[in-house]
Amino acid sequence: MSKVDQVQTPDLKRFRELIGQIKQYEEILGLVYWDMRTGAPRKGIELRSEAVGALSSETFKLSTSEEMGKLLHKLNEPDQRAQLNEIDRRLVEETTKEYERNRKIPPELYREYVVLTSQAESAWEFAKENNDFPGFVPYLEKIIAINRRFIELWGVKTTPYDTLLDMYEPGLTTVELDRLFGELRARLVPLAERIANSGNKPDTSFLEGTFDKEAQKKFSKLILKEMGYDFEAGRLDESVHPFATGLSPGDVRITTRYLPDDITSALFGTIHEGGHALYEQNIKADLAGTTLCTGTSMGIHESQSRLWENMIGRSLGFWQRYLPDLQAHFPGQLDGVTAEQFYRGINVVQPSLIRIEADELTYNLHIMIRYEIEKMLFNENLNPRDLPEVWNKKYNEALGITPPNDAEGVLQDVHWSGGAFGYFPSYSLGNMYGAQMMDIARRKLPDLDAQVASGQLLPLKEWLTEQVYQHGKILQPSEIIERISGQSLQSSYLCDYLENKYKEIYRLE
Amino acid sequence: MSKVDQVQTPDLKRFRELIGQIKQYEEILGLVYWDMRTGAPRKGIELRSEAVGALSSETFKLSTSEEMGKLLHKLNEPDQRAQLNEIDRRLVEETTKEYERNRKIPPELYREYVVLTSQAESAWEFAKENNDFPGFVPYLEKIIAINRRFIELWGVKTTPYDTLLDMYEPGLTTVELDRLFGELRARLVPLAERIANSGNKPDTSFLEGTFDKEAQKKFSKLILKEMGYDFEAGRLDESVHPFATGLSPGDVRITTRYLPDDITSALFGTIHEGGHALYEQNIKADLAGTTLCTGTSMGIHESQSRLWENMIGRSLGFWQRYLPDLQAHFPGQLDGVTAEQFYRGINVVQPSLIRIEADELTYNLHIMIRYEIEKMLFNENLNPRDLPEVWNKKYNEALGITPPNDAEGVLQDVHWSGGAFGYFPSYSLGNMYGAQMMDIARRKLPDLDAQVASGQLLPLKEWLTEQVYQHGKILQPSEIIERISGQSLQSSYLCDYLENKYKEIYRLE
Repeated sequence: MSKVDQVQTPDLKRFRELIGQIKQYEEILGLVYWDMRTGAPRKGIELRSEAVGALSSETFKLSTSEEMGKLLHKLNEPDQRAQLNEIDRRLVEETTKEYERNRKIPPELYREYVVLTSQAESAWEFAKENNDFPGFVPYLEKIIAINRRFIELWGVKTTPYDTLLDMYEPGLTTVELDRLFGELRARLVPLAERIANSGNKPDTSFLEGTFDKEAQKKFSKLILKEMGYDFEAGRLDESVHPFATGLSPGDVRITTRYLPDDITSALFGTIHEGGHALYEQNIKADLAGTTLCTGTSMGIHESQSRLWENMIGRSLGFWQRYLPDLQAHFPGQLDGVTAEQFYRGINVVQPSLIRIEADELTYNLHIMIRYEIEKMLFNENLNPRDLPEVWNKKYNEALGITPPNDAEGVLQDVHWSGGAFGYFPSYSLGNMYGAQMMDIARRKLPDLDAQVASGQLLPLKEWLTEQVYQHGKILQPSEIIERISGQSLQSSYLCDYLENKYKEIYRLE
Repeated sequence: MSKVDQVQTPDLKRFRELIGQIKQYEEILGLVYWDMRTGAPRKGIELRSEAVGALSSETFKLSTSEEMGKLLHKLNEPDQRAQLNEIDRRLVEETTKEYERNRKIPPELYREYVVLTSQAESAWEFAKENNDFPGFVPYLEKIIAINRRFIELWGVKTTPYDTLLDMYEPGLTTVELDRLFGELRARLVPLAERIANSGNKPDTSFLEGTFDKEAQKKFSKLILKEMGYDFEAGRLDESVHPFATGLSPGDVRITTRYLPDDITSALFGTIHEGGHALYEQNIKADLAGTTLCTGTSMGIHESQSRLWENMIGRSLGFWQRYLPDLQAHFPGQLDGVTAEQFYRGINVVQPSLIRIEADELTYNLHIMIRYEIEKMLFNENLNPRDLPEVWNKKYNEALGITPPNDAEGVLQDVHWSGGAFGYFPSYSLGNMYGAQMMDIARRKLPDLDAQVASGQLLPLKEWLTEQVYQHGKILQPSEIIERISGQSLQSSYLCDYLENKYKEIYRLE
C-alpha cells in the first residue's frame, strides 16, 4: 500500500476534519486582519475586535478540545503512528506541540488577549500618527503582563524570554542568539567603521525628488510579476506597515506604502513582502487546507523576504536589467544615472532611525537593539514607560543618532502591538539563512548572476521552491538549512557576503 | 425596576451570549462575502468557499442547537416572557422563528448549499463576462433543486413560491403580490403608452460622452457625504454588481461600478446603495451585536435605496442644487445644461434591457417579469435550461425589446446565483413603501422640497432615522408603514407619484 493511498482510520479522518476546520477559521481570521490593516472603517473596529476574539476562541477551543486530546493520544501510539504518511506524521507532531502549549492557557485569558491585541493595533496606529507613546503604554503594559502570564503557564526555558523565542524559531535560545549576534557584531561593527571612514561615499542625490504614486505602484507590480508573484493568487494593497499574508496558496496578499519623496521605500518594501509571498504561494498542493501550509519558521520566512529584497533587489545585476524600466516609469527624473551609480546609491550605508528603511549592514544593529530591549522587558522587568528613554539611548550608542520623536523611535514597529515579542531576531536570522542559501544557490545555478542580470528571476524562484517553499511546515528550519548546505546556521556567510559587497561599493583598501 | 435595568436571568444571559456569537460570525461572513465581490484573488475562491461553508455551518449549528431550543422554550414561557424588555422579546420571537425554520434543514444540506452558492457567484460572474448561460445552468439547477427541498422541509404555503416570498417579506403572498402588481400594471402600462406617444421627449444627448472615472468616484463620494453617509463607518469600493453590506452600524460598505460612457450608472447606483447604507448605519446602538441589528425586511430596505435614488436623486430640486457641482467635476462636458434639462434627461422613459439602469416607471415591469419567471420555476416546474427563451419572450412582450445576448438578458442579475429566489418583488414593494413614506414626509416636513433644493438632505435622513432606521428589526414592516401612514401598504401612492412626475416631464395633456 502506498503511503499516499493509505486507508484513513476513523481517528485519522476525524483528526484531519478538525485540522481542516482550524485552518479554515485561521484563513478567515487572516482575511479579517488583512482588512483591518488595509482600510476597515474606524468605527467598526471595536465590534470587529470582539468578533475576532470570538472566532479565535473557537479556533483555540478546537485545538485544545478533549476530542483533539484523545485523537492525538491515539494517533501518537506507536502502531498508529507507524501507519501515518509523512504529512500526517508531521501534522500530528505539530498539533501535539500546539495542543500541549495551548492546554496550559485558560480560554478566557486567550480571548482577552486576542481582543486586546486586535484593539492595540489600532491604538498603535493612532499613537504613531499622533506621536503619543503615553497613549499606547496602557495597551503595552497589558500585553506584556499577559505574555508574562503565558510564560509562567508554559514554563520558563532558561530565561522567560527564551520561552518566547521558541515560538517563532523552534529551539532558538538566548545563548545561541547572544553567540550569533556576538559574531555578527565582531565583524560588522568594524566594517561599518571602515565604511564611515571611507572617502568613497556613493552619490545618492538622484534618489531625491518627488515620485508619482501611480508610477511607483506600476513599477512595484512589474517587479512582482518578474519575481514570479502570481496576481491571480494575490493582490497588492497599501497599509501603514507593509506586510504579506498567506490565506491559502491561492490567496497571498501583499501590502506596501508609497512615500512621495522616497522611491526606495515602496520598491524594496514590495520586493521584501514579495519574497514572503513567493514562499506562501508555492507550498505544495498536498498541504493546502492543513496547518502545515505555512512557512516553517519566522526566520526561514524572513530569509526569503530579505534574500529577495537585498541579495537580489539590491544587487548590481538586477539594476543592470531593471534600471531602464524604472527610468521609463519616471521620465526625466533618473536620466543619465548608470546601473553602477544606482546600485551604489541604494546601498549607501547610513545610520538611520527607521528599521525598514535601513541599509543591509546597519539593519542588523536595529534588530540587536530590539533584541536587547525585549530581553530587558522580560528578563529584567524593564518598565514599559521607560521604553522611549532606553530606546533612544541604545540608538545613540549603536548608531550614533537619537530619534527626534517616538513615532520615529520606539513607536515605529507594529510588532509589539500584536504581542509579537521574540519575533525581531527572525530578521537577522533571515539575513544569515539567506546568505547561506545564496552561497549554495550560486554553486548549484552557475548562471545565476547572469540570469538575474538579464531579468530571468524564475530559475532562482524554482530552486527556492524546490529547496524551501514547497515543503511548508513539513521540514524544520534546521532540516531546511542542513539539506541545502550540509551545515547548521552560520553567521559567517552573512559576514562574508556583506564584507565583499561593501568592500567593492566603498572601495575599501 | 425599569425595563432597561432588568436583571438578566441566567437563561437570558446565555441566550444573549449565543445571539452575540451568531451575530459576530455573521459579521465576519459578511466581510468575507464583501471581499469575494471586491477583488479576492480568483485562485483562492475554492478554498475560501469551503471556509465560508464551515463557518456558516457553525453559525447554523448555534442557531439550531439543543441548547438554543431549550433556552427558547424557557424564554417563551409566559412568566419569563413577561419579564423581557422590548428588545429581548423581539429577539426571542425572531430567534424562535429562525430556530423552527432552520431545525427542519439537515445541517449537511445547509452546508452544501452555502458552498454551492458561494461558488456559484463566481461562476455567474464568469458566465456573465463570457455570455455563457449554459455554463451557469448546472449551478442554477442545483440551487433550485436545493430550494425545492427547503420548501418541502419548511412546508408549502399555498404555493411553493409563497414559502420563498415569506423569507424576504414576512407574510407576503402571491395572492397579495398578484393584486398589487395588477394594480400597478393597470395604471402604469397606460401611463407608459401615453409617454411613448408623447411628442415631448426629453433631450438626453448631453448624457453621451466619456466620463473620467476618478471624477465619477469623487462626485459619488460628495453625494454620499451630502446624504449623511458616514465614511468613518463605511467605505466605497467597486464591484461588478453594486451592493451595500451592513457588517455593523460602524462598518457599512457600499460598492458601485463606473461605466466610462454612462455617468448615471455609478451615480444612481451609489445613491441607491447609499440609501441602504443610511438604514444600516443608523440602527440604534442598543441593537448592535444582536441579530435585530439589520433592516426589518428586504421590501423596507429597498424602500430606502429606491427612495433616495429616485424620489430624491432624480428630483428637480436635487439637481437645482447639485448640477453645478457635477458640471465642475466634468469641465466642458455638461456646460450650458440647465437643471430642468438635466432632470428631464435623467428621467427619460425608455424601455431598456438592464434592470438596474431602468427608469423609475419601466423598472417595475422588469420586476414583474422576474416575479412571473420565479413563479414558473417553483410553481410550474419551468426547466432552468429554458430560462433564456422565456426571459427574452417576456421582455419582448412587456417592453417590446429582445436582449441581443444572455449577458444583457437572463444573466444580468446576481440574485439567483446566491439562491435569492423571492427577493426581486422587494424592489417594487420598496417603490410602493417609499412613495407612501414620502407622501407623509412631505406633510411632516413642510420645507422638505425647499431643503432638498438647497442641499439640506439631513432633515429627511433624520426623519427616516426616527421613523425607520433606528428600529432595525424591532418593528415589523407592516408596523413601520402603519405607524408612519396609518395604513397598510398601498399601490396608489406610487402610481400617483409616477403619474404626477411624468405628466409634468412629458407634458401630458
